[in-house]
Amino acid sequence: MARLLSLVEDAHPALPEVMAALAPHGGRAHVIGLTGAPGVGKSTTTSALITAFRQAGRRVGVLAVDPSSPFSGGALLGDRIRMEQHATDPDVFIRSVASRGHLGGLSFATPQALRVLDAAGFDVVLVETVGVGQSEVEVAARADTTVVILAPGMGDGVQAAKAGILEIGDVFVVNKADRDGADDTVRELRHMIQLGNREHSVDWRTPVVRTVASRGDGIPELVDCLAAHRDWLQESGRLETRRRERARAEIEAIAVAELRRRMGGDGGPVPDDLASSVAAGTTDVYAAARRVVERLTREPRRQ
Amino acid sequence: MARLLSLVEDAHPALPEVMAALAPHGGRAHVIGLTGAPGVGKSTTTSALITAFRQAGRRVGVLAVDPSSPFSGGALLGDRIRMEQHATDPDVFIRSVASRGHLGGLSFATPQALRVLDAAGFDVVLVETVGVGQSEVEVAARADTTVVILAPGMGDGVQAAKAGILEIGDVFVVNKADRDGADDTVRELRHMIQLGNREHSVDWRTPVVRTVASRGDGIPELVDCLAAHRDWLQESGRLETRRRERARAEIEAIAVAELRRRMGGDGGPVPDDLASSVAAGTTDVYAAARRVVERLTREPRRQ
Repeated sequence: MARLLSLVEDAHPALPEVMAALAPHGGRAHVIGLTGAPGVGKSTTTSALITAFRQAGRRVGVLAVDPSSPFSGGALLGDRIRMEQHATDPDVFIRSVASRGHLGGLSFATPQALRVLDAAGFDVVLVETVGVGQSEVEVAARADTTVVILAPGMGDGVQAAKAGILEIGDVFVVNKADRDGADDTVRELRHMIQLGNREHSVDWRTPVVRTVASRGDGIPELVDCLAAHRDWLQESGRLETRRRERARAEIEAIAVAELRRRMGGDGGPVPDDLASSVAAGTTDVYAAARRVVERLTREPRRQ
Repeated sequence: MARLLSLVEDAHPALPEVMAALAPHGGRAHVIGLTGAPGVGKSTTTSALITAFRQAGRRVGVLAVDPSSPFSGGALLGDRIRMEQHATDPDVFIRSVASRGHLGGLSFATPQALRVLDAAGFDVVLVETVGVGQSEVEVAARADTTVVILAPGMGDGVQAAKAGILEIGDVFVVNKADRDGADDTVRELRHMIQLGNREHSVDWRTPVVRTVASRGDGIPELVDCLAAHRDWLQESGRLETRRRERARAEIEAIAVAELRRRMGGDGGPVPDDLASSVAAGTTDVYAAARRVVERLTREPRRQ
């Protein structure tokens, strides 16, 4: 499985074949996105959830989507180290997803990595992303159930993060709920949910769960909320809609990556002279883009 | 100018015409990217730089790239409020850039917004992004000069951020340098630069500047480093290379946006039945993407 996931990260030429073979074997895993600003305790919460799911006999896959490495090509080890307590459990699989280069990025790699874990028969797949950054937030929002994690007293950074991730939460967690200000955070959050979250308020009452993930407090309640949301998705027909939208985004990301590849992709031949003349102001950028698109759509398939 | 920038954010149909008109009027501004994790004092540093540049008689444009709003479509007011002290100065223009929807996102909007400010005759354009998130880091890295800001004692979150943004820094700032641990942060940083930053070490000695931006300490040194880097870029021929790469990325982003538009774009018609059958596992995702690409590249231009 680790090798399959490497194929995904490397956008390996064999990937289409692999994905075709996996296609019929998916759709069973409950895909749960966990997101929140740095420092709220995402990894601790993820770890506590793994423990809880394992106690219930469920197999758990984890994708830690790592936003830090567009340039280095490597993934941070931090999350993996923090989760080493699960490393010896054969029914837990943890992997950091980095996006090597820009060819499609996270929106390319993550859904395909999900597909691998799903086909491998994991009952639950947790996708942990930092809740800052456009691509990262989109990735979290493509789960079946999206959990947004906050912590009391995190100041401006979190306030900002809240604004961006409020609308994607199906379940909210106020972690470190034993700290000062937890009540305020919960109250403020409920207020914001009421104001902002129109789609959900109709037929899904977005819960706010208090946890102290490091001690396991509140985790059973969180697990219940996740199960309730999964049931609601199924009964309301939303599960099918969400998965169709996830598939649509995945198709688009692959199609765009293929088009980029034909364009020369990463640092590739949008011809130097065209780029230079745009930089110099002698060609306007839309005229240049038009030329690239026309060449691309007229040429016969190269591969 | 505010209206021009709105055209950019909305990907307005008149944009190609506008950009064609602006094309010959650019290339003079020094484009400076500022990035760093939440809480390191990016806005305070930006604000201090504005003050310093204004004292030197230079006109300053600021783009605050806001990662929080792929879903709400709005930009946060925080940065703008923090910079209100400059609001009455007609030679300072500050704007938050949100990416409305996903059609190209930040990589689409930001370079074109830059182009507007550049053509308007600003001497310096500061692009402030949060240093977390794939798109956000890419945007910062496309500047002429990229400034990476850190602060002592920010814990894991910053450690993570460092790993991702280390390789894009031309100039490093350790802000809040009056705090405990500043010496350690500087030392660690110098060590990491030495290890990691091969391209630069050849002919540009990446400086680490200590600042207390809230008091203006270290800001003159930072301004000197920025000027030195600009001179180095020009003398070494790197300015041309970087701007060519920026133009290339801009061309690509516009071309991809156009292709996405033809694909139906955001939530559009990658046909429902195709997306559904991928979600159900009856069509594999690469076969679906291939179908989309083929239709796209065969069809005559629709518009």
